[in-house]
Amino acid sequence: MTKLINNLCVIGTGLIGGSLCLALKAADACDNIIGAGRSEETLQKAKQLNIIDAYDTDISHAVEQADIIFVSVPLGAMQTVFEKIAVGLKAGGNTRAVITDAGSSKQRVLQLAETVFPDNGRRFVAGHPIAGTENSGPDAAFADLYKNRRVILTPGDDTDSDAIERVTTLWQTVGAEVESMDAAHHDKILAATSHLPHLLAFGLVHCLENIDDIEDVFRFAAGGFRDVTRIASSDPVMWRDVCLNNQQPILDMMKRYRDELDMLYNALQSGDGEKLIEVFQHAKQTRDKFTH
Amino acid sequence: MTKLINNLCVIGTGLIGGSLCLALKAADACDNIIGAGRSEETLQKAKQLNIIDAYDTDISHAVEQADIIFVSVPLGAMQTVFEKIAVGLKAGGNTRAVITDAGSSKQRVLQLAETVFPDNGRRFVAGHPIAGTENSGPDAAFADLYKNRRVILTPGDDTDSDAIERVTTLWQTVGAEVESMDAAHHDKILAATSHLPHLLAFGLVHCLENIDDIEDVFRFAAGGFRDVTRIASSDPVMWRDVCLNNQQPILDMMKRYRDELDMLYNALQSGDGEKLIEVFQHAKQTRDKFTH
Repeated sequence: MTKLINNLCVIGTGLIGGSLCLALKAADACDNIIGAGRSEETLQKAKQLNIIDAYDTDISHAVEQADIIFVSVPLGAMQTVFEKIAVGLKAGGNTRAVITDAGSSKQRVLQLAETVFPDNGRRFVAGHPIAGTENSGPDAAFADLYKNRRVILTPGDDTDSDAIERVTTLWQTVGAEVESMDAAHHDKILAATSHLPHLLAFGLVHCLENIDDIEDVFRFAAGGFRDVTRIASSDPVMWRDVCLNNQQPILDMMKRYRDELDMLYNALQSGDGEKLIEVFQHAKQTRDKFTH
Repeated sequence: MTKLINNLCVIGTGLIGGSLCLALKAADACDNIIGAGRSEETLQKAKQLNIIDAYDTDISHAVEQADIIFVSVPLGAMQTVFEKIAVGLKAGGNTRAVITDAGSSKQRVLQLAETVFPDNGRRFVAGHPIAGTENSGPDAAFADLYKNRRVILTPGDDTDSDAIERVTTLWQTVGAEVESMDAAHHDKILAATSHLPHLLAFGLVHCLENIDDIEDVFRFAAGGFRDVTRIASSDPVMWRDVCLNNQQPILDMMKRYRDELDMLYNALQSGDGEKLIEVFQHAKQTRDKFTH
């Protein structure tokens, strides 16, 4: 029986790319997975872990025969990778390949794809799986990462519909639920639900680093602190790139949050218990409503 | 065989008090547990759940025969409860009872105890179990809550040493590790590890409540958002009281955090990737070091 994908090329075989490979293998959906990327060490590791079947440090060469190209590198590396893909597709006369990515901001990636890929990027389907952990690298990959998680696609107006369908099927095969939306809307929502919380968590740990009692801070930290700061263990390069590539929506959310903190600071300073309880009650109600 | 405690009186039979009762019962350490508090409904529920053996809505009456009195009510209710305890101890001629609490800020509680209890509160041992969940009420109580968790005692200079010993043994019996420190140091550390994170979490949910896309915010929230905001489901009354009772240390931490956010905002606005990655790397290293 023909499998869903003949040749899959995954560029970046860490948590995100590696988990997709493992999940597709578990679903027996791929004939051949080739890993590509800059770091031969990472690729070797991914091969050892049976995440990929083969690897190539030459991205252009790796994509020549691919049916689907999955780009899961930090956003800052996206342009270089896209350019190498474009070179490879041209060299291989590969016009049918569908390209998709996993970047956490989508407007910049879409612009890039339209500029770099042939035909204004009609074979490129911008995507973002809403899944991850604070760990990174091939070691962190696991087959169930995308099970029952959402994947957002933000195709452009001219994206080929068969390309969108292939990427949709790809994600559904690994257990994800696929939704489409406008890239600007994606970037705003993700600034709120993911990018701002990451900044807040990094900032919380960082601002406590220099107090005298840092040892005690961690010794006496309970579950609340550990949960709030979990994502401060995330990959710094990835998150620098997310910030720089979704700058304005994140700045907007930070401003909103800073106003909130100022309001809470003033309420506490003036001993305004009614204001505090109003905020806490609203927050609790909203969270409980959406999580139960 | 004589049990550790003959008569325990627990005032406030929610998550914290209820869990202590269940843990002491599991350790077969109490002859009799009497619950006390304002809400008969809560006490009935606690009795139904076999958390307590009997209850009394008259706190003064409930403490007359107690060996140990455990106060686990929100900090805002502490003064009234302490006053009722003092009345009951006097009425019952009960001078041996040891009183302890579970309040999240300790300087105010100590002051209160010195003012309200006989002999400047020599039989009062201020305590704080570093444990909890975002849930509240008797239903949320469970016997293992304190297992391998830390409990901080902040006795005053004149606290009776046998009272400190009894409270230490009480907590050790339910599997906790007991440490002593100065109340002011406790309040500073807890402002950093618990009070500030709770404010940040409440504030994060609250500041997103009024954006148009709140439904999407929660629909597309991943594990990071859920973890960061988990404690925003905590009890609003309890947290208003914590804030108002540990005002200055929390304001100091909020100011420190606001400076951190301003720095991150400016770094992002000016596209300073080096600054961002420096902060993220430091935060990740610090957190990884202390959590692994």
